[in-house]
Amino acid sequence: MNLIILNEQDRQGDNRYELRDGRAEHIRTILKLGEGDRVEVGVVNGPRGVAQIKAIDSETVTLVCGEMTETEPPRPIIRLICALPRPQTLKKILITSAMMGVRSLDLVRANRVEKSYFQSPLIEPENQYPYLVEGLAQGKLTRLPEVRVHDRFRPFFEDKASPLEAWQEPSSVRLVCSTEGARSIDRVGDIGAETLVVAIGPEGGWVPFEIELMQSRAFKPFRLGRWVLRVEHAVTAALAQIELLRSLKS
Amino acid sequence: MNLIILNEQDRQGDNRYELRDGRAEHIRTILKLGEGDRVEVGVVNGPRGVAQIKAIDSETVTLVCGEMTETEPPRPIIRLICALPRPQTLKKILITSAMMGVRSLDLVRANRVEKSYFQSPLIEPENQYPYLVEGLAQGKLTRLPEVRVHDRFRPFFEDKASPLEAWQEPSSVRLVCSTEGARSIDRVGDIGAETLVVAIGPEGGWVPFEIELMQSRAFKPFRLGRWVLRVEHAVTAALAQIELLRSLKS
Repeated sequence: MNLIILNEQDRQGDNRYELRDGRAEHIRTILKLGEGDRVEVGVVNGPRGVAQIKAIDSETVTLVCGEMTETEPPRPIIRLICALPRPQTLKKILITSAMMGVRSLDLVRANRVEKSYFQSPLIEPENQYPYLVEGLAQGKLTRLPEVRVHDRFRPFFEDKASPLEAWQEPSSVRLVCSTEGARSIDRVGDIGAETLVVAIGPEGGWVPFEIELMQSRAFKPFRLGRWVLRVEHAVTAALAQIELLRSLKS
Repeated sequence: MNLIILNEQDRQGDNRYELRDGRAEHIRTILKLGEGDRVEVGVVNGPRGVAQIKAIDSETVTLVCGEMTETEPPRPIIRLICALPRPQTLKKILITSAMMGVRSLDLVRANRVEKSYFQSPLIEPENQYPYLVEGLAQGKLTRLPEVRVHDRFRPFFEDKASPLEAWQEPSSVRLVCSTEGARSIDRVGDIGAETLVVAIGPEGGWVPFEIELMQSRAFKPFRLGRWVLRVEHAVTAALAQIELLRSLKS
């Protein structure tokens, strides 16, 4: 927990927040802070800054925020599309997406996605929220990724009403990670684009039909490397490679 | 499990292996294979190839290996040094190291490493083994990373008897990942080197003394990106960036 993430439910007045859960525990037992000490905080989908501990006891930590600064959303905008993974993997991807500043995460059905995954409680936003906040707290970010679940494959890629079509950012590049992709991420499109849409397949990979359909929608296949990775590693690896390329260009 | 990893204990004759554990279960219930079917196998620290199922029942799967091919160890040689993480994280790092073809993993004490971590059963090689094999099976590799634990920091970096001094590979580059590092990995040394020694710090990072000592031993600080990552993500991200740079140069 590198940043204490605050939300509306914690708020008890203008700049005053009361914490009673794991965050209070973290301030008491890990950070070992007391009355008058300062701690880095961020408001969900809001500014970041430093708060002072006004009161602390075994139940409650009361914080008063000082000057808070709006943070710039990370650039480039990364829009992640993942074949819906099994719940244990989804937790990791929710954390990673928030931690690494992904703007949105669209979870789609694919041929190699088990139907039962769509019955997982993790499909519900309120159950995703703790993992997203855990990621923000680790990554010192405040903006929640938008998470959506799509229980069909084709409509997400083909329908006019799909979020894919609604993303209006200029200069967007679409990439699909595939072990079949012969080229690395820098060779398939302009990584300097403002928005990168990156699709990561299920365990076992996309089936050829899916790759072809995505290619018809301007997705360019790329490979992360010579390995066979798990989904959660593929997400981290892709974001790390994009970050490196961005620094090469700057 | 993308590759069934075989070892000496499974061996019942020249090319004959008998499995009774999770691998047998995997062949029966996930791969749904039967007598006469073929399956990809690899021998620990040995060749890879295809085996045929000679017999299968609810207890035992008997495999006979066909022609097996020695595999080239991955290049560049990656020698990972990690501040010993907490056991749950160590499991992940063992899996990732094996999965991504790391040659060796040296786990060192650091200022921000809790002493109790050295009492974990995971310090023992026999307890590390299942996680390493899990990584090999995922990454379709057969070579086990060498894993060593060092309960002091300075001797590892300073002693003539340290493994660090014993690594005799020509053209080796030493890198230390640090949020203080101002430059990305491509700007700190010749990533085209045959061997990359990459040091990853503990949660909370290396302390200045540690970074300075490593710098005096020719380690160059670099940063992975703008994020604050967990150790297991830092390992994956660093390996992914090295892989991308290698492809840029080839």
